[in-house]
Amino acid sequence: MNKNIETFIGCDAEYAEADIVLFGAPYDGTTSNKPGARFAGKTIRAESFGLETYSPYLDRDLEDIKVFDGGELELPFGDPVPVLDKIYSYTKKVISGNKLPVMLGGEHLVTLGAVRAMVEKYPDLVIIHFDAHADLRDEYLGQKLSHACVIRRCWEIVGDNRIYSFGIRSGTREEFEWAKEHICSGKYLLEKVESLDSLKEYKMIGKAPVYITIDLDVLDPSVFPATGTPEAGGWQFSTLRGYIKDYCGALNIVGVDLVEYSPPYDSNGVSAATACKILRELLLLLRK
Amino acid sequence: MNKNIETFIGCDAEYAEADIVLFGAPYDGTTSNKPGARFAGKTIRAESFGLETYSPYLDRDLEDIKVFDGGELELPFGDPVPVLDKIYSYTKKVISGNKLPVMLGGEHLVTLGAVRAMVEKYPDLVIIHFDAHADLRDEYLGQKLSHACVIRRCWEIVGDNRIYSFGIRSGTREEFEWAKEHICSGKYLLEKVESLDSLKEYKMIGKAPVYITIDLDVLDPSVFPATGTPEAGGWQFSTLRGYIKDYCGALNIVGVDLVEYSPPYDSNGVSAATACKILRELLLLLRK
Amino acid sequence: MNKNIETFIGCDAEYAEADIVLFGAPYDGTTSNKPGARFAGKTIRAESFGLETYSPYLDRDLEDIKVFDGGELELPFGDPVPVLDKIYSYTKKVISGNKLPVMLGGEHLVTLGAVRAMVEKYPDLVIIHFDAHADLRDEYLGQKLSHACVIRRCWEIVGDNRIYSFGIRSGTREEFEWAKEHICSGKYLLEKVESLDSLKEYKMIGKAPVYITIDLDVLDPSVFPATGTPEAGGWQFSTLRGYIKDYCGALNIVGVDLVEYSPPYDSNGVSAATACKILRELLLLLRK
Amino acid sequence: MNKNIETFIGCDAEYAEADIVLFGAPYDGTTSNKPGARFAGKTIRAESFGLETYSPYLDRDLEDIKVFDGGELELPFGDPVPVLDKIYSYTKKVISGNKLPVMLGGEHLVTLGAVRAMVEKYPDLVIIHFDAHADLRDEYLGQKLSHACVIRRCWEIVGDNRIYSFGIRSGTREEFEWAKEHICSGKYLLEKVESLDSLKEYKMIGKAPVYITIDLDVLDPSVFPATGTPEAGGWQFSTLRGYIKDYCGALNIVGVDLVEYSPPYDSNGVSAATACKILRELLLLLRK
Amino acid sequence: MNKNIETFIGCDAEYAEADIVLFGAPYDGTTSNKPGARFAGKTIRAESFGLETYSPYLDRDLEDIKVFDGGELELPFGDPVPVLDKIYSYTKKVISGNKLPVMLGGEHLVTLGAVRAMVEKYPDLVIIHFDAHADLRDEYLGQKLSHACVIRRCWEIVGDNRIYSFGIRSGTREEFEWAKEHICSGKYLLEKVESLDSLKEYKMIGKAPVYITIDLDVLDPSVFPATGTPEAGGWQFSTLRGYIKDYCGALNIVGVDLVEYSPPYDSNGVSAATACKILRELLLLLRK
Amino acid sequence: MNKNIETFIGCDAEYAEADIVLFGAPYDGTTSNKPGARFAGKTIRAESFGLETYSPYLDRDLEDIKVFDGGELELPFGDPVPVLDKIYSYTKKVISGNKLPVMLGGEHLVTLGAVRAMVEKYPDLVIIHFDAHADLRDEYLGQKLSHACVIRRCWEIVGDNRIYSFGIRSGTREEFEWAKEHICSGKYLLEKVESLDSLKEYKMIGKAPVYITIDLDVLDPSVFPATGTPEAGGWQFSTLRGYIKDYCGALNIVGVDLVEYSPPYDSNGVSAATACKILRELLLLLRK
Repeated sequence: MNKNIETFIGCDAEYAEADIVLFGAPYDGTTSNKPGARFAGKTIRAESFGLETYSPYLDRDLEDIKVFDGGELELPFGDPVPVLDKIYSYTKKVISGNKLPVMLGGEHLVTLGAVRAMVEKYPDLVIIHFDAHADLRDEYLGQKLSHACVIRRCWEIVGDNRIYSFGIRSGTREEFEWAKEHICSGKYLLEKVESLDSLKEYKMIGKAPVYITIDLDVLDPSVFPATGTPEAGGWQFSTLRGYIKDYCGALNIVGVDLVEYSPPYDSNGVSAATACKILRELLLLLRK
Repeated sequence: MNKNIETFIGCDAEYAEADIVLFGAPYDGTTSNKPGARFAGKTIRAESFGLETYSPYLDRDLEDIKVFDGGELELPFGDPVPVLDKIYSYTKKVISGNKLPVMLGGEHLVTLGAVRAMVEKYPDLVIIHFDAHADLRDEYLGQKLSHACVIRRCWEIVGDNRIYSFGIRSGTREEFEWAKEHICSGKYLLEKVESLDSLKEYKMIGKAPVYITIDLDVLDPSVFPATGTPEAGGWQFSTLRGYIKDYCGALNIVGVDLVEYSPPYDSNGVSAATACKILRELLLLLRK
Repeated sequence: MNKNIETFIGCDAEYAEADIVLFGAPYDGTTSNKPGARFAGKTIRAESFGLETYSPYLDRDLEDIKVFDGGELELPFGDPVPVLDKIYSYTKKVISGNKLPVMLGGEHLVTLGAVRAMVEKYPDLVIIHFDAHADLRDEYLGQKLSHACVIRRCWEIVGDNRIYSFGIRSGTREEFEWAKEHICSGKYLLEKVESLDSLKEYKMIGKAPVYITIDLDVLDPSVFPATGTPEAGGWQFSTLRGYIKDYCGALNIVGVDLVEYSPPYDSNGVSAATACKILRELLLLLRK
Repeated sequence: MNKNIETFIGCDAEYAEADIVLFGAPYDGTTSNKPGARFAGKTIRAESFGLETYSPYLDRDLEDIKVFDGGELELPFGDPVPVLDKIYSYTKKVISGNKLPVMLGGEHLVTLGAVRAMVEKYPDLVIIHFDAHADLRDEYLGQKLSHACVIRRCWEIVGDNRIYSFGIRSGTREEFEWAKEHICSGKYLLEKVESLDSLKEYKMIGKAPVYITIDLDVLDPSVFPATGTPEAGGWQFSTLRGYIKDYCGALNIVGVDLVEYSPPYDSNGVSAATACKILRELLLLLRK
Repeated sequence: MNKNIETFIGCDAEYAEADIVLFGAPYDGTTSNKPGARFAGKTIRAESFGLETYSPYLDRDLEDIKVFDGGELELPFGDPVPVLDKIYSYTKKVISGNKLPVMLGGEHLVTLGAVRAMVEKYPDLVIIHFDAHADLRDEYLGQKLSHACVIRRCWEIVGDNRIYSFGIRSGTREEFEWAKEHICSGKYLLEKVESLDSLKEYKMIGKAPVYITIDLDVLDPSVFPATGTPEAGGWQFSTLRGYIKDYCGALNIVGVDLVEYSPPYDSNGVSAATACKILRELLLLLRK
Repeated sequence: MNKNIETFIGCDAEYAEADIVLFGAPYDGTTSNKPGARFAGKTIRAESFGLETYSPYLDRDLEDIKVFDGGELELPFGDPVPVLDKIYSYTKKVISGNKLPVMLGGEHLVTLGAVRAMVEKYPDLVIIHFDAHADLRDEYLGQKLSHACVIRRCWEIVGDNRIYSFGIRSGTREEFEWAKEHICSGKYLLEKVESLDSLKEYKMIGKAPVYITIDLDVLDPSVFPATGTPEAGGWQFSTLRGYIKDYCGALNIVGVDLVEYSPPYDSNGVSAATACKILRELLLLLRK
């Protein structure tokens, strides 16, 4: 008999044979509003048994692809420095084996650990960023390592015009000003909340390796309430699904994360079900 | 003085005078994900006192029509066989008196009990099916009587091309393949999630007797979270209202059910209020 | 050191220097369905720390304007007569100082106290009314002072064709009939649920002083579930934001209220966050 | 067929044959903290189907006694004056038919309506009062009719040394001082929180007609969390059950109420189940 | 790297080396009140990471013993017959390997599947039964296989005077009468709710093989609210812990189950934490 | 007019005149299980309006004493080092003014910041520690600054036999072993869960300055569910109240904190109400 193994539904490949490695980064120590994203990975796996492995949108099935689910990293609490180190190391191991990492946050700061590893392998990394918040502060209450600063920290690594942000509808005036200079979509951040003209970006990005970071609060709170800082005025599910389909189809995706789902605020489990469905679509689109 | 009588608001006709009979089928024994639909009928009645009897959409009032509310059937738990028998018998009694049955589930399997009775009276019965899930499996974990198989069981009774499914966005590959052969809307199941071209169906259905089964999870989880297996990417309230209005206006409706509302997952009562409003619109449209 | 002061974020002006006075009217005694709106003001202030003071929609910041937050009025429970008197007195004091009052309900009846004061200063007052419910009953269960009658009571003060109602999708037949005679938007109440043709109203209203009362249940329950009587089929956040922007930009606004947020039904805090954002946009638009 | 009748379990006698009349008084307009007690009666009836009609404590069964359940009174909102009138009238009708009234609040103020009727028939009425709060203020925020004043109002009717309060552990200094003069148990109010020496009271009360009012917050919040103002340090279920058994057995009980259960704060239904069980024990003890 | 393995904390032995086998039976199809016990096993494992493996009560540690956690059985929904077969087969396999089974329900009916297997190996099996409900009905709404009948079904297998029930405080008159004849503790069922004289039972049971079934609703609802039919007047945690310690220490325990934890009613996770702690104590006491 | 000031009820003294300074330390970054204690202070203040200022237990009133409520410290997220510095500085300022600090956590690690300041003024400080958990680990997942290590860190400052722990019922074997050597109550930690013999400690402590740290999870989860890691088998409210009364009456208390209340897990507000009551009793006992 086998010990109890609990993976995301349909993701039961062995590590050696897998093309994609799914893992959780259960840290929410710098969450500035409502904490709880640490429970996202475990909850998403548990809820995934209510999801079909087959996507009628894509006519693909998780049963046909090879995903290894490594479970949750064991991360300390409080100080984010050792947390980011552990995420960095795990991501590095995954990509050194030529597998594609898919990380479940945790809060958005966990992206920084993964990006540090990605950039070592892909120095010309481009980041596509879906979010309600700009996350471009230089510091937050004196801290440089904060989920409110994570895209700024990533920019310090990848540089100007390598980050494309969509869905942004909250931030300080300074962040919006700064974005105009340094973020590809900065000049029209808010317009991107509702419009869907992604073709232009395809051409600009070309064949560059792309990391996609999805802060689930890019969705409207009606669709996805269970997040630390819900922001009215966001996307419907089909909008996010469309973007993911477009970008994954056209670009060279080398890593993905899905962050800021906070189970304690998911009073009826709808956000979990939605996160599961987004993850399924993502995984199916990442297969070669 | 009168004993405490609690009916759906405005549905206080005596049985003899009623054109429509409302009753509940509080069974959720084969619910594969989150149970609780057994409480739907009682909760809907209790919440209905917050609803107006008048519909400004239709300029009609429940006060003007004759609906008898028979309360909840007393159904056993566990084995679905005696449950379906009881639903069959009650439905038969209602239609033998030339009254139109409106059943509140419970889970979707309860539809089978009603359809068995309907087909005896209306051998050429057509079924219109609103749902997020295909419910077309031949069996589920070895069981033929499951809410995941209910439309397949109905098909065994009514046959090919007599079922129209709308809103379907979840199922196995086999279900979607099978639907192409046997379900009227099968070739374009997913397209029906968002488009609203119901005119064509009118003509195909003509004067045939029609049973409408509404699995409330056809609505988007943002609109209707309290259901056993919420599926992102569904309809807005106005979409469902529009469909109901169109079909009830154009077709010969002989029975209706409303299933899969699960009160334990209705943390703020919004799904109850929405179910009440759909039921009011339905009842007002069914009057001759 | 200072005592604990808790204002809505960014609203920390002193009374003397303020252009706008924010205050709460924590009364919900005539709420006919789910009570709890009494907690709205305190909850909105507490949740506002998760909101940015900057609006990227408007490119304005609460830091740049002068709002005094006077906290919650101390109101009795039960009988609404002394409650309305206290609201009247406070509003009168605010406007006699040439400050613009922004009141947080509480249930909708609180509007009556404010309107009584407003009309003394502005005899030609026009009322713009966003709501799911007509609130036009002459009495409710024998009571004239009820949240279900508040717009009727206001009409008794301002008279025919001075009230514009939008978003109304619930009421009795009598209310809808009555509205056709007395309410500017009465003939097409329901159409206003979804269409956005506000230009015509601008011209009709002209330079008259305008009081805006926003019953938050005008929003769809998916967007704003935490209200006493949720009504399916309402507005998205962007619809309400658009209306507010249009009217505040074009008209002579002299007072505003935001009512019927009921925190006990806000299971994940999303309605609080949405109310905060609407209030921020309102405050930013009211500055001259 | 019969219309849907929903009574408290086992309470399905006709009015004419009943010894006891159960009815609800769904008013919570003066609740000073968390409202919602208006929903108590409906919720208690709905939850009662999970209760056995048989009490093993008493070896009695609801099936053996005659209780008529009249449902909920239709009460207005806001002003308590007409509310108390309706309760008074209904109670008067019940007792004029020589039936024993058992009222489900609602908030504690509803007791006043019943007591007004009781005293007309029983001028020497004694009141036994279980509560966490003294409810002896002369007014609360300027209002005489408040749940915080209800025992003071009753005292104005029955006079000194006719009220026995038990379980009191909250109030102002003035209330505790005042009680020493006017309330039988006033000198040792707090001691009665934990001790169970009711024998002495039996003798003092003798054959006088007794009305028992049970504010369910007399129970510890761990046992009964769903009440408007929970007070730590209260009774276990067995303590309250013991008191009820003792008093109902030894005294001449002529009326009872059970107040301050607030369903919106009953997140898991445990308070409903506990209220049901207390009501069953009460009803079984009241039979002759 | 290893796939995600999620066991109850400290229960990570391989099957071959294990003395105890923990497994879940996620069925709740005959639950007559609030369903949801199907989620118990998964929730208990997920919550167990908040528990210490060390028990200061016993000065023992899960790290020192060998428990294999086999996860959840895959059980069908609806009809209980195949469910009980699967539980029977798994239990049989476990005990045929001379390992001690510890089953996590699910509802109480699952006990029947295990007992059927146990009795084959241990024909003189004694059952110790902790519960709030007698579970001695011969049928419930026409069904013989119901959680309300499970102890009656077990009695049909083991016979008179082989079952000891404790904590029972709810049932029909018939059940209590019947118990006096057939259940060891039947004559004083209710007394066993509060007294703790287990010594006498030790002697009567002697060396017979004992199966312990713990319906967690034996605990007071204040201590353990998350169960389908909470019954006021139950045990404190220390009472149950004491009983478990006494019996496990003195008797020859050959199997155990823990049933009726229903996660959807565990609004703050306290019942999960309590179930984890009881399970830890149980496991530590079962080691030889 | 005054800006909105929200203090704990009855705590509205000015700083200069105050004997006691109440303040919040909203940090929960090292919480190892369920975060949310950051919201404790704000929630406790908001809920305190439901509490009487008068304690009938003590016959004292908050109106008679002088408490300044400084609100919540503005603390960063993530790294605990700057958090502890800010708490240290504020505490130092308070005690340098000869005022007694009463801190509301936040998680338990905040105690360390206060103790660092206290020991500078009172080198012979004694710590009385109420808790379910030993909090004596040397590190937790590699971190020295963790709520699971906070008493160990305090011990490094005050040394052997200066800490008295009560209520401890959870920890590793190592923690319990270690406590026997270094913690006054270490040899009988578990016995202190239920017994109440505090007299002996009085004599040992004598006139030494005493800091009391109350982790609210010392209470039984039935009484206080809203905490990060609930532990069955704890104290009733009256037990904690008794201890507080005894120690505050007999000893020289120089500072107090109340930690680990986590509002997101307080589904019905009962834990807030209980925390308020404990705080009131504490404040009333601390007055000279």
